Formats: sequence, C-alpha cells, structure tokens
Amino acid sequence: MADHDETPFDGDGDKLREECGVFGIFGRQDAAAITTLGLHALQHRGQEAAGIVSFDGKQFHVERHIGQIGDTFTKQSVLDRLDGSRAIGHTRYSTTGGSGLRNVQPLFAELSEGGFAVAHNGNITNAMIIQRDLQKKGAILTSTSDTETILHLVAFSQEKDIVSRFTDALRQLQGAYSLVALSSKKLIGCRDPLGIRPLVLGDLDGSYIFASETCALDIIGARFVRDVKPGELIVITDSGLKSHFPFEKSPSRFCIFEYVYFARPDSTVEGGNVYEIRKRIGLELAAESPVDADMVVPVPDSGTPAAIGFAQGANLPFELGIIRNHYVGRTFIQPTDSIRHMGVKLKHNANRRTIEGKRIVLVDDSIVRGTTSQKIVQLVREAGAAEVHMRVASPPTRSSCFYGVDTPETGKLLASRMSVEEMAEFLRVDSLEFISIGGLYRATGETERNDEKPQFCDACFTCDYPTTLADRDGTDKVRTLSLLAANS
Amino acid sequence: MADHDETPFDGDGDKLREECGVFGIFGRQDAAAITTLGLHALQHRGQEAAGIVSFDGKQFHVERHIGQIGDTFTKQSVLDRLDGSRAIGHTRYSTTGGSGLRNVQPLFAELSEGGFAVAHNGNITNAMIIQRDLQKKGAILTSTSDTETILHLVAFSQEKDIVSRFTDALRQLQGAYSLVALSSKKLIGCRDPLGIRPLVLGDLDGSYIFASETCALDIIGARFVRDVKPGELIVITDSGLKSHFPFEKSPSRFCIFEYVYFARPDSTVEGGNVYEIRKRIGLELAAESPVDADMVVPVPDSGTPAAIGFAQGANLPFELGIIRNHYVGRTFIQPTDSIRHMGVKLKHNANRRTIEGKRIVLVDDSIVRGTTSQKIVQLVREAGAAEVHMRVASPPTRSSCFYGVDTPETGKLLASRMSVEEMAEFLRVDSLEFISIGGLYRATGETERNDEKPQFCDACFTCDYPTTLADRDGTDKVRTLSLLAANS
Amino acid sequence: MADHDETPFDGDGDKLREECGVFGIFGRQDAAAITTLGLHALQHRGQEAAGIVSFDGKQFHVERHIGQIGDTFTKQSVLDRLDGSRAIGHTRYSTTGGSGLRNVQPLFAELSEGGFAVAHNGNITNAMIIQRDLQKKGAILTSTSDTETILHLVAFSQEKDIVSRFTDALRQLQGAYSLVALSSKKLIGCRDPLGIRPLVLGDLDGSYIFASETCALDIIGARFVRDVKPGELIVITDSGLKSHFPFEKSPSRFCIFEYVYFARPDSTVEGGNVYEIRKRIGLELAAESPVDADMVVPVPDSGTPAAIGFAQGANLPFELGIIRNHYVGRTFIQPTDSIRHMGVKLKHNANRRTIEGKRIVLVDDSIVRGTTSQKIVQLVREAGAAEVHMRVASPPTRSSCFYGVDTPETGKLLASRMSVEEMAEFLRVDSLEFISIGGLYRATGETERNDEKPQFCDACFTCDYPTTLADRDGTDKVRTLSLLAANS
Amino acid sequence: MADHDETPFDGDGDKLREECGVFGIFGRQDAAAITTLGLHALQHRGQEAAGIVSFDGKQFHVERHIGQIGDTFTKQSVLDRLDGSRAIGHTRYSTTGGSGLRNVQPLFAELSEGGFAVAHNGNITNAMIIQRDLQKKGAILTSTSDTETILHLVAFSQEKDIVSRFTDALRQLQGAYSLVALSSKKLIGCRDPLGIRPLVLGDLDGSYIFASETCALDIIGARFVRDVKPGELIVITDSGLKSHFPFEKSPSRFCIFEYVYFARPDSTVEGGNVYEIRKRIGLELAAESPVDADMVVPVPDSGTPAAIGFAQGANLPFELGIIRNHYVGRTFIQPTDSIRHMGVKLKHNANRRTIEGKRIVLVDDSIVRGTTSQKIVQLVREAGAAEVHMRVASPPTRSSCFYGVDTPETGKLLASRMSVEEMAEFLRVDSLEFISIGGLYRATGETERNDEKPQFCDACFTCDYPTTLADRDGTDKVRTLSLLAANS
Repeated sequence: MADHDETPFDGDGDKLREECGVFGIFGRQDAAAITTLGLHALQHRGQEAAGIVSFDGKQFHVERHIGQIGDTFTKQSVLDRLDGSRAIGHTRYSTTGGSGLRNVQPLFAELSEGGFAVAHNGNITNAMIIQRDLQKKGAILTSTSDTETILHLVAFSQEKDIVSRFTDALRQLQGAYSLVALSSKKLIGCRDPLGIRPLVLGDLDGSYIFASETCALDIIGARFVRDVKPGELIVITDSGLKSHFPFEKSPSRFCIFEYVYFARPDSTVEGGNVYEIRKRIGLELAAESPVDADMVVPVPDSGTPAAIGFAQGANLPFELGIIRNHYVGRTFIQPTDSIRHMGVKLKHNANRRTIEGKRIVLVDDSIVRGTTSQKIVQLVREAGAAEVHMRVASPPTRSSCFYGVDTPETGKLLASRMSVEEMAEFLRVDSLEFISIGGLYRATGETERNDEKPQFCDACFTCDYPTTLADRDGTDKVRTLSLLAANS
Repeated sequence: MADHDETPFDGDGDKLREECGVFGIFGRQDAAAITTLGLHALQHRGQEAAGIVSFDGKQFHVERHIGQIGDTFTKQSVLDRLDGSRAIGHTRYSTTGGSGLRNVQPLFAELSEGGFAVAHNGNITNAMIIQRDLQKKGAILTSTSDTETILHLVAFSQEKDIVSRFTDALRQLQGAYSLVALSSKKLIGCRDPLGIRPLVLGDLDGSYIFASETCALDIIGARFVRDVKPGELIVITDSGLKSHFPFEKSPSRFCIFEYVYFARPDSTVEGGNVYEIRKRIGLELAAESPVDADMVVPVPDSGTPAAIGFAQGANLPFELGIIRNHYVGRTFIQPTDSIRHMGVKLKHNANRRTIEGKRIVLVDDSIVRGTTSQKIVQLVREAGAAEVHMRVASPPTRSSCFYGVDTPETGKLLASRMSVEEMAEFLRVDSLEFISIGGLYRATGETERNDEKPQFCDACFTCDYPTTLADRDGTDKVRTLSLLAANS
Repeated sequence: MADHDETPFDGDGDKLREECGVFGIFGRQDAAAITTLGLHALQHRGQEAAGIVSFDGKQFHVERHIGQIGDTFTKQSVLDRLDGSRAIGHTRYSTTGGSGLRNVQPLFAELSEGGFAVAHNGNITNAMIIQRDLQKKGAILTSTSDTETILHLVAFSQEKDIVSRFTDALRQLQGAYSLVALSSKKLIGCRDPLGIRPLVLGDLDGSYIFASETCALDIIGARFVRDVKPGELIVITDSGLKSHFPFEKSPSRFCIFEYVYFARPDSTVEGGNVYEIRKRIGLELAAESPVDADMVVPVPDSGTPAAIGFAQGANLPFELGIIRNHYVGRTFIQPTDSIRHMGVKLKHNANRRTIEGKRIVLVDDSIVRGTTSQKIVQLVREAGAAEVHMRVASPPTRSSCFYGVDTPETGKLLASRMSVEEMAEFLRVDSLEFISIGGLYRATGETERNDEKPQFCDACFTCDYPTTLADRDGTDKVRTLSLLAANS
Repeated sequence: MADHDETPFDGDGDKLREECGVFGIFGRQDAAAITTLGLHALQHRGQEAAGIVSFDGKQFHVERHIGQIGDTFTKQSVLDRLDGSRAIGHTRYSTTGGSGLRNVQPLFAELSEGGFAVAHNGNITNAMIIQRDLQKKGAILTSTSDTETILHLVAFSQEKDIVSRFTDALRQLQGAYSLVALSSKKLIGCRDPLGIRPLVLGDLDGSYIFASETCALDIIGARFVRDVKPGELIVITDSGLKSHFPFEKSPSRFCIFEYVYFARPDSTVEGGNVYEIRKRIGLELAAESPVDADMVVPVPDSGTPAAIGFAQGANLPFELGIIRNHYVGRTFIQPTDSIRHMGVKLKHNANRRTIEGKRIVLVDDSIVRGTTSQKIVQLVREAGAAEVHMRVASPPTRSSCFYGVDTPETGKLLASRMSVEEMAEFLRVDSLEFISIGGLYRATGETERNDEKPQFCDACFTCDYPTTLADRDGTDKVRTLSLLAANS
C-alpha cells in the first residue's frame, strides 16, 4: 500500500485491493488469446502485471509483463509465442519492491516428471515458516512469494503423480487459495477448504475453464457450470473432469468483501449476483438509516449500485452529483507547495449546478483510511451542498486481511481508531451511518449472521479470522532476505 | 476514423470524436504543472497526444508527447523542463498517419519579433486553399495541419504588433476555432465569430486562465469568470485583460453536440450545465416517446444522464443492466476466426440477473454507424431481456462535421442511409425513437429551433452548415502531400 | 565539443571531428538499403544520428534516427518504409542541444512544385545573416540549421525549375558545402566553388551514386567514376547525367585535414589515397625529424599509417605498444574522487612487456587540446619506457575550422597557446616534432605549398581562411533563439 | 553459433568465442564502479550481457543487463543501486534462446546461512548428469545453466561453512571453471584442477582483486600479484587472503587458444604476454613457411600481431592492405537477392592503391569455418593482388571445445573435412600454411609439445581432451527442457 501513499492525489489508495485474478482453459485452439480475454475481464482484480503459461503438447511457453493486459498481451507477437491449446493466466495488483517480473505469476518449475505452472489468488498464512524449512533442506528460493513455496513443496514431495504431489503440498498450507495449475497432461483448479476466494467452472463449447469470476466467462461467451466448491480440487484431462475433495470437510467461509467491493457487479459468485446484492445493501441501508434529503449521490463508481438501491428504498432522486475522471495516469505530479494548497481534484469533481443548496445522501461502498471520503465530502461542500449525509454499504473496516487483500495496517484503518461519531466529525458530514453486519448478511440472502459458525469470512469487520495466522503469530514477523533488489 | 475500424472489438469507434482541448494560464508559478492538470481534466476531448509550451521570461520551452497526460506529462523531469509562469497546452484526439509528433500542438514559430505558440480546437474550412497560396509565396509547410496555416499567415502578415498580425491572420480564416496563443508578452484566447467551439475564462487567485470547459477550472479550484464570447479576442498581459472584437458581428452558433456528448457532464459551457441538459433531454424523450417497460438501462457511460432523466420522467426504475469495463488497452487482439465467432464482449457486459425476463428501455446519447448499438442490443437480448426499446438522446446523425470533429463519411452514418423503421430493424429493437430537434432545443432552454437563424450549429442533424466549406467545395478535395510518412 | 568535455575518460574529445557524410543513389531497386550500406561505410564522418529520404515515384519517405546506422537503419521495418529506387542519406556527428531529431538530415520541404530533400556536408559561413533576412520575409525557421536556410532560399526563389531555384539559392551562400539533393525527378550532387569538402561520383551497374568518400562505393562494389569537381553541380535524371558549373571559376582549396585524419584510410579522394598519403607523411616525418630509438609505436588507430611510414623510413621495428579497447559505451561513469585518482585507462592500455626499458617513438596524427596525448605519454611512461619521442603527422593545429568541422575554440587548442618546446614539456616527452607544412604538402604529391594560392584549405594550421566568415565578423556572433529546447 | 550464421555479412560468426570474463573485488569503496571498469576491459570475452552483485555489509544488490558494459552499467542510477565495498561481476558472450536475463550471471541464491553469488568462466562437462540427480532430490531448476548447477550443489551440501560447502560442490564437477564467488563474509576465487581458463590475482592499494586477465587490472591501475594456480581456491576475508588446494594435484593444462585469439594482446596470463607470443608465432611461421612476396597484410585486428612478427621474420614490409570498419551494428539488413549479389563488404575493405599488382602474404590468427577467410581472399583478389599467400597463426582447428568456448559443431570446421591442399583451393589462395603444433608451443616458450603430458589444452587442434566429457558420452546428448521460452 506504501507505494499508493506516495501518490498524494490518488483516491484509490484508500480502497482495499484484491490482489489477484486467475484463469485457465483446457483443450481449445487459441488458448492464450482466450486467457488474455479472460484476464482482461478480471483486470479489476489486479492491474499492475500479468502472466500466461501455455502448453503446446510438447513445450511450455511463458510470458510475463508489467502493465495492463490490454496493453501488454494483445500484441500478435506476444500471443504467437504462447502456442498451444491449454493455458493458465494470472493478473496481479502489485509487484512489490524492485523485484520486477520475478514475482509475476504463473510461476513455473521444471519437475523431474515435466513442467508445472501455478497461478494463485489468496495468501498462505504459514508460508514463511515453510520457507525456512525448505531452505534447510536445500531449496533455493528466488523470491518471498508464497506461490513459490507451493512449487517447492510440490518439488520435494515424495508422492509419485502430479495430483498426489500437489495435494501433498496443499495439505501443508494454511490460509486462502484459489489455484489454477497446468502440467503437461492436466489442468487443475482448486479452492482452500474454507473457499475464501472465489473460483468458478465454465464451459466453452466443450472446453473447461476456471476463472475467478463469471464475468471472465461472459466476455468469451462461455457457459457458467458451477462454483468450484470449498476444498474441492478439480482435474481436467483429455478424458474429462474429475473432482477430488482431499481435505477434511469444513463449513464455507467465502469472503463477504467480494460482494461489497472486489468482484465486478455483473459477476455471480457463490450463488449471489454482485450488483443485486449491492443494490440490496442500499435498500437495507435506507431502511436502517433513513434521512430527510433531496437526492442520493453515489461516490462513483464503487458506490453506485448501493446508491441506486438506497434511492429506490428511500424514494429519493438518484443523481450524478459527482463525476469521475476515468483517465488516471500511472505516475502523478509531485505537487509543489503552491499546487498542494490548491486542493487538486484529479479523480472526482462535484457538479455544482446539481448539488448547490441541496441536501445530499452520499453513498460509498466502504471507508478504509477515510482520506478519500474526507476529500469527497469537502468537494461536495465546496460545490454548495446544504447538508451531507454519508451512508456506507459495509460495516466499519476495523482489521487487516491476511487472505490476499492489500489492506493498510490496522492502525491506519479509520474505524480502528475512531467511533462512528468521531468519524462523522473527521469527515465533516451531517450524519454518518454504516450498514450493520446483520443488514449486510441479509443483503446476501442470509437471515442473519450465525455468530457461532459465520457463513462468511468477515474478519475485516469483526476480527474473527477463520484460520490460524502462523507467520503473524511468530516473533520474526517478516522474513529478512539478503537480496535487496535485483534489477533483471 | 479508419484506424478505429481496425479494432474490431472497440465500440468507441462508433462515436463522434471531439478532436481537441486547449488550456492557457498567465502569471502563475508552476504554470506548466497547472496546465497539465487542466489538460488532464480535458482528456476526454483528445486522448492520443498532448503538448505544452511554457515561457520563462526569456525562452520558450516545448514538450510534446504521444499518450495520455497522466502518463506523459506527470514526470518531474518533463515538468522541470517546462519552466516559467506562462503556459498553454493542447490535447488531441488523433495523430493521423505516420506523422508522429509533428502534428502535436501547440505549434511554435520563431517570428522576427520573437516566439509565438498556438493551440487550436476546431477546424479551418479553407485551410487548403490558403496553404496553396502560402506555398507559392515561399512558405515551407511541414504538415497538413490547419493550425500551421495560421502560424504562416501570422508570419507573412505585414502588420507590426503580434495582436494585429494574429488578427490579420484570423480574418482570412473560415470555419471553427477556439485558439489559445502565447507570445513573449501576451496570452491570447479567442473564438471564431460563430463561437462554434467552447472557450471559457477563469481566474486562479488573480491569474487568468483559458480552457475549453469549466471542468478544467474545477480541477485546480479556479473560479469561472465567463465564456469567451463568439468573435471575441482576449489579450492578457502584465497589465491585465483587454477584450477585442475584430470581426463583424454575427449571431452565435455554438455546437449543440457539445451538450449531447462531447463536453464533460460536470462542465458548464455557453450558460448550460451539461449534466442537467442531458437529463432534461431524457425527460423530453420520456415525454415524446413513452414506453411500457420494467426498467431503464443506460448504455454506460455516455447514456447515463439521459437515462436518469428518462427514468425520472417515465417513473421507471433506473438499473445498471450493462456494465462497462474501464480497462481498455491501446491495441487489441487481431482475432482469429475462431475468436471472432465467439462474439467477444470487450467493453460491455449485460447483467443477466438484472435483465432476464424484463422489458428494457435502453438509452444512449447518439447513434453514429450503429455497429455498437447493434452489439449492445444483442448483448441485452442474449441476457434474456423480454423486450428492448431504444431511446436516443439526439436526433438522427445524418451529416459529417467539418468543425473539428472526427466523423465517419456521410455514407457510413446509419441515419444517412436508413429510415427510423429500417434502423429499428437493423438494430433488432422492439421500438426505436430519437429525440426531436425541437425537443433537443427545449432541453437546452430554448423554446424551439429558430429555423431562420438557428441558435446552435446542428449541421450533423440538419445539414445546415453555418459557414462556407471552401476546401470541400473545390474540385481537388484532398491536398496531396509529397511526403507520405516521416518517422522522426 | 562541450558534451565531450563532460566525458572525462573519453580521449576522443581530443580530436577534430568531421561533422557529416552524405550519400545518394538514383534508379536502383533497394535504394534505401544501398544508402544504408553507404552511410555505414561513412559512419566515421558522423556517428550520432542519420537520416534517409527515399522517393518511390509518387511519394517521399523519411526516416531519421539517433544512433549508429548499423543499429537504427538495419531493421527490416525501417527499410520497408523507405520504398523507392531513389534515395539520399546523411550521417552526422552531433545533434546539439535538446533539439533531438529536428536537426537530423536530410531536411525535406514541400515546395509548390513538389517535394525536395537535401543533405549537407560542410558549413555555411553567412547562414545567420541570411536567416535574419528570411525571417523578415515571413519564413518560419524551425531550427538554427544552415541546411534549413538553403531550403528556405530555394522556397523563396522566383526561378521556375528546381535546378534554377537550387542554383539561385547556392549563389547566396558562402562557406563549404557538398550537397546531395532529391526532387521528384532529379538527384543532384554539388560542391562549393572551392571544393572544400569531398564528394565522389560512382556507378553501380548503371545507377549513379554520390558519396562523400570512395569507401562508400567499395562497400557495395560500385565503380568509382570521378570526383565531383569544385563548383560543379551534377544533375541525374532518367535521361542520364548533366554537369553544370553555375559559379565563377576559382582554384580548388580541398581540406587537407581530410588526408590527415577525417577520411578513411582506404578512401581515395581528390586523387589521393588516404593510407598512402598518411604513410608518406610518416616517411617525410622520419626524414625531417629522425630520432635514435628502439621501436615505433602508433597511437591507435589514427596514428597507425603514419607510424608504419615512420618505421619504414627510420628502419625501426613497428610495434603495438599501445592497445585500444574498441568497446566504448555511450555514457561513462561520473567518477567519484576515489576513482578519478586511479587514472582509469578506458580506451588505451600500454603493453608493459613490449615497452619496458625501451626508447619509443610515439606517432599520432594530430594534437588538438593535448589532453589525450598527455595521458598516452603517461601511460607509456608508467609502463616503463626509457624514452618517449613524440612525432605528429600534421603541423600544430592553431585555428578553428568554420567549414563543417567541430573544433574547440581557438583558445583551447594547445598549439595556439604554447610553443613546441612548451608543448613538449606539457606532454612530458623527451622530444616532440610536427611535420612541417611543406612536408605535409609533399606527402600529398605537391612539391611545396604555394603561399600565394595554396592548393588546399589548411586554415587550421595557417589561419589562412579561403572564404569570408560573415557570421563571425558581425557583432552578434550567435543568433539567439526563443526556443530553448523542444522535446518532441 | 547459430545466431551468427543468420547474420550473413558478419565475419565474426567465423571465430571461436570465449564465453565469459569474471571480476571480483573485496574491501574497496565504489566496488561496483571498479567492477564495471574491470568488466569493460574484459568486454572482448563476452559482449552480449553482463551482471554485477555487490554486498553492502547487510544486503546484496544485483543488476543484470543485456548489452555492452559501457552502455548498461555506466549510468549513475545503476551504480547507485550497487552499494557496497565488495562486488563480483561477469560478462558473457551469448544469452541463448529467448531466455533473456535469466541466464545472465552472477547467479545468486539465498542459502540458509545467507546470500551467495557466483560468476563462472568455463564449462562443466557433467552438468546435465548432476542436474538430473538434483531434480530427483527436489531442486527446482530455473535454467539449463551449469552455473545454476553449482549453486544447487552448494545448497544441498551437508557441510557447515560456506567454503566447505562450495568445495564439496566443486569436487563433484568435471570440466573447466574459473569462478569468483561472494558471500556475506568472503570473496572466493578458484580455478579447476587443470587451470584451463585463466584467473589472476591483483591488488589495488590493499584490496584484493580477481580477474580473468591482467588487462582488467591495468585499466584501474591495480598491481598484478600472481596467477591463481590450477586447482587453487583463494578466500579473501577481512583478515586477508587464505589459499586452499582442495583437489588432488594434477599437471596444468591451460587453454593455448587464449594465447592465439581469446585474450587481449596486452594481457599477461599464465606467465606469457599475449602480444609477444602472437608476434613470436608470426616469427616461427615465417621461418616454417617462408614465401617470396611484396608485403605482409594482416587480417585486422586479430591477425595483426602475428603479421608484424611475420613481416619482421621475413623482412617484408608490413602494410594495412585491409581496413576494418569498427562500427558494427547489432542487427544487419536481411539482404534481398539484388543486394546479396553485390557481395557487400560490411566489415573489411581492401585498399586497392596499396595492394594492386602486389604479391601479398595474408596473416590471420585461425581458420574456423573458412567463410570469412574466403571473403577476405576474394576482397584482396578483386583489389588486384597479383598473388595471395595465406599464413595462419594456429594449427588447423579440427574439434569442438567443451570448456566454455562457443565452437561450431565439428562438422562445420573447415579443417575437419578438408586437407590443407583442399582448403587452399577452397579459399582460392596461391599457398596456405598453418603454424605447426610444435611451432605454436615454441612460441609460448616451450621447447616442444610433450605428447605424453601436454603442457596445454590444445584439444581443438589435437582432439586430446584433458577431462572426461560425461554429458557428451551419454546417450541423451541434450537435456530437454519443458520450457521453450520465457519472456520475462
């Protein structure tokens, strides 16, 4: 997140960030081009880098590039190098440090029985402990990536066939993972026992597909078959699909924030349509925290579905009082003092003619550090709003996520250090209300949160982590690497 | 437009395109950084290339770059080279052919009395005739740019001071131009006698600003002073502002398409707020062409304001039934046949859960070639819509624009070769209605179109061009250049 | 030269530098590829940038690139864009300032009768005076290039056909120029009345070629026809060759430094073979300034031919006592103090085993600022040489060149501020001798220098400039441009 | 070598190629800058890519770049990232396939006791056998590099300290290696038991240096201490130097081709000065194979020292009858048929005025495939030479090298398929003679070759390989990798 703090105008630094999207297809001409399209639809899950591994029946081909799919993987020369009818791909949010392309997935290893590539969405919470053990056995780690850890566990496994070795490796992991893997004979998709991250199974004219969300099926006209189940490992070969459940059965704990913000509104994951759930959150919120106002204004674009729901529930006009500039450069000006004082509005602008003199209900999906919300409120006030009432489509975000989401440290989360009243004052709003945790569960279709056995992972709101956090519990919190930076 | 035809998935090829945005500031530290911010807010007026010229009291500095402002002008090194407290900037839609940076504005000339830079939004309709004349006099033209023509007219003028020479040049021009120019002593802003393209005057703590739209004032917190008037030439010097009206007075003919599509919704130009006018078009349209339906769905993002208006007018729910992917790469895959048949949905996806079984009113801002609309309708049908009624927030687009807008040839405009009924059939909608020209005028605040002296330029709908089109009327329609392409 | 001063290890900063090489071919398939090869052979005349203009019968094509020919013009895509059977090319030493590609030749202008491209080797000594006049007439100058001046003179000429207009322009010029120009019908080659810079005519299976030196004919197996004569203008068309002498006849003053250093040893220009003349300089020098020594060591590579001659004349062994590293990077380390004190030997190294205890005759082609010679002498001394006697294959370089050679200001030339004795002390050699001006003329085949009417331009040794130097004689020595730098 | 076959004009494809140079320094400010200079002096040992690893007392820093040192490592930003007073570097000839930077050395591994970097000159002849074994143990190989094999052997070693682990690894290797390695406490330099590749020890004001050749000491003014001995492993720590001999003693077999071509003429390795030995080869050759001729002409630059020796021995004039163009681009034109027939002379040109009508002794260092020699002879003949007598400063090259030299397959070596008479006819020379193997040994200072225990490795001339060639003797000659190419 640190690198986003450095872009002072960039409101997006104030969002939780899904770190990855994955995709895989087996047995279809132009597998890499189709994977490129799938990753393009998953771009919101990770915009900084992407990779594709294809297999042509004899050899694997790897391409990894920094930048957005639509810029880096759409050149014919790149696709031409990715020959084959099987491919997996990965898009990621951030390549930390100077490590450049080394951490871009899919990762590939030459095992004694052939090549093996893996792409990972999630985060292993005991990776550092495993890494220390691997190193003692003679493994040469080239990165701190928890995905590389999985590869080494597979390489060291004494099992014979690749599925057994992979399963052997997975059993040593704690945390969240939706994985897509490719060997010379098999395409594998699997989710951790709790099913924290999404993974769906699709079908394109008889070719199986794995993807993080259904929107990656829609873009290519593939049919949604079903969600991969928590703890399920599906193996695709020339003979078709085979399902395994290698782990002890445990109740599902799907990440509820996927519904709040991460997933695309047109996706349907774990049975719920994202847009419809978000709109219902707005409806619940209007019922829980009504307000006398002239119009409902979304913080675009993430607040829009909940704002539509709120407006419908509250029977208020829905108005685009804030306009978002979709052109956002990679770098942005290091502002001089004189510019800093101008309060530059790079990303959002209020529409004075619409807002002036009006009582506004401002709807956003979440409040993380609060810096963006503060700016948005100021924007609306400067444009002449008479009153500003903020309604938030998720409960207060209080704790960090360790399951593959880029969260600020707990101390930087506004809700971890302020009460709702203090937050209202900090944001300078006339009123501030968050959806209740119960309201959020109701919007997903549950009747209420089962506090004994919560139906979702909602640790960022409740601190109720569904797995152990071995690496965090140890004394040496961060494994120190001898290598500072490798520019290569 | 040809280059867009080549990207088969890119729906944006099916829009009219404003070709330029301009910005200028006089007497303010960090003038180039402020110009960068202003151009960033005007990015929707031209995304392919941009340039800035600054003056530091002694020398001019020029930077021109292909790409979006936020990527190219935000590096500290670039801004550091643009020293000075006066600057003008330009963002443009397209750099045609292989000419690379040569056509990127502002253009600069070393005149005998010092440097002179000019940035242009619009199009000169007698540029080729003037160019032929200039060449005979000994001028060396380095491009086909009509803006270079203006510079040469200034250079050849026999007048003494720069304002007189500039005025002398302008008087020879026909067509549309909003210009911002910079000499070693003066910042000049002016609009053609009909005021076809917008230009506003702003003020930032005492420093004057020219910008194409008010959103470029908002981003830096500058105050909107007033529109530059049609035929007005404003000169800013250390002694302040001086207004000139060098042309014979004629009634204003502001481009009505700026309200329909070009300008940003949060801008206010020529007295009208763009979002509010677009919403009123939706209201008028709901009144003119009502329909029995379940929901109103905008074609995002350009159809959204009119769709909100329509939903309010028709008292129907407003729903995001189509989701737009904002990540759009520069290049995109040359699809193989197998991919082409998949009907890839790169930019828009329908949300089946919202749409299935519903009667939909689809609202878009305009129909140009119809290819995108056709795809969108198909998308909505495939997602299970029971009925699709299309409502368009502008009259049928029938004729090309010669005033700085990139339009397909007339023959490629759907409305030029089909009746509304044929278009409905072509698009496969259950009903299709366009706002009437009268309705459009009413939405802008007029009571009706004055057919004798129309209040706007609406030639793209009516073929009623407000100026002569000298270059087009001649026999040699396109001036042939000896130089095909210069990669330099 | 300033930019070379900044590379502290770069001995090459201590050489006079020819600024350009030119090439042209008419009526041969692959004209651009052949021009690329010709320019590659002329790379020693200018290594920083190059350009080619081709004509395909309908249109001109231009490519200009920073960098060496072998890196920039050898890509198939570049050559493919340079279609046509006629082409001219230019390679240049330095692109001064931040002006980037704007000054890279050939320059091209769209005249009223069609395109016209010109490539120039030399320097116009009244260009600034002409430029001021052109500007008053309305010309827009885009650079300070004297070659652009020629183009504007052609554009303003009242003559009818291109040859007359070109001749009209040339008659206004003073200074040195070997020019190759291309119109839609004609390839033109010409030299100034004094023939200061070389230009040869070649023939490749019936296609005429112009080139700065014969080595550019050899590389493609073309036949040397003859030198273009001083003051001659040769026009090649489909009907063949036509020779013109548009200037008043004057005796030739070919640059004698072409023989000393600029031209490639395997070239034959103005009747003299460069290697043979350099070897004869060594023979003359051995006769003029003999020395009792053990071996002759060249300063590689420019001193080698004269050293071979000296060794033959003095009957001493010729030995490679100094080894040159041909890998020289573009940039080199900004040395820290600790590195500066190490006396790094980036380019030359002495071979201790060969030199130790020996009396050395060190032969170099010229001494400009003396800094390289000083380092070389120190190198040889540190390697244990018993005595170091320096012999220089040109007279002391005392004055700047204004005819297309990059010379340090007169004050920086070692010979302009020291006697030979002082120079010997400065260089710390046991003896130092230069060839006499008479000896140099004898080596070229003359019996002596005709002091009334010198047979060569030798102004750098004698201050005897063969033309007026109008720009230098005026009060305003450097024309000031408003534009500091244009990055585009 | 294959990639050179593709550049049809590039004579250098017809040379054996040393594949690497190594450098290391311990305990000196600006260690990376000094390593850069050292590698620059070793550039002739590998021009395609280079890497440096430095250690700053806490962390390692790695930079690897494709391209020449002087272009890639001389930027201040690159050096700034390579902090620390200890560094090792590597320059390599070729990065095979599409593997890009992955194979660029030094390689680095995070071992359980800290970082470890290694740079390698030579070739391990049982690497593939070891790799197969490592893979079975669970090692993940990221390349086919034999240097990576060494790192894995160190990682799997059960020894405690790094020197023991490194020694443990080396004892499993067969083949040729001069290695420089860096751990957090130690700089290590070592040579294989036969000392096939060179490695010298130097001293810069008390800081120890390892380098492939003495020219890398000269460039920075470091003192030559001694050669690292065959089978010696030298460890440098803060406490100074410690020498180990971990292998069974065996007689030295230094590569004699280092004297013939690989090493720089100003280097002194294994006691012999390269220039002096090359000149003595020329003297021996003149004695062995005299010829009645007018002049001796070297094939520049590699034939020059032997040509000087031949001219002295034969008492004939030494003349630069062939001129080499030192500007050689990375890519070069794919010639069309019309160009191919021109017989383009990209790299060498004959000087007709010097050669015409003369009987020439042409001296080159070696004949590999013969294609370049054939072109050179044709060049000289076309320039009018009356007779061409070729003298070669090495015996016929008959067998491939497996010790770190890039050789064509045996079948492509001219001497492997032709007698000397046939070669003379193929090259179209009037006579052709090679130095005898005895003459070559005499030139190095030996009285003769000891056929029982040869003093050098001369396998390329004699097929007498000094080690087993385990990988080549096996049936599976080339280990197949699943991964074809990774663009990352």
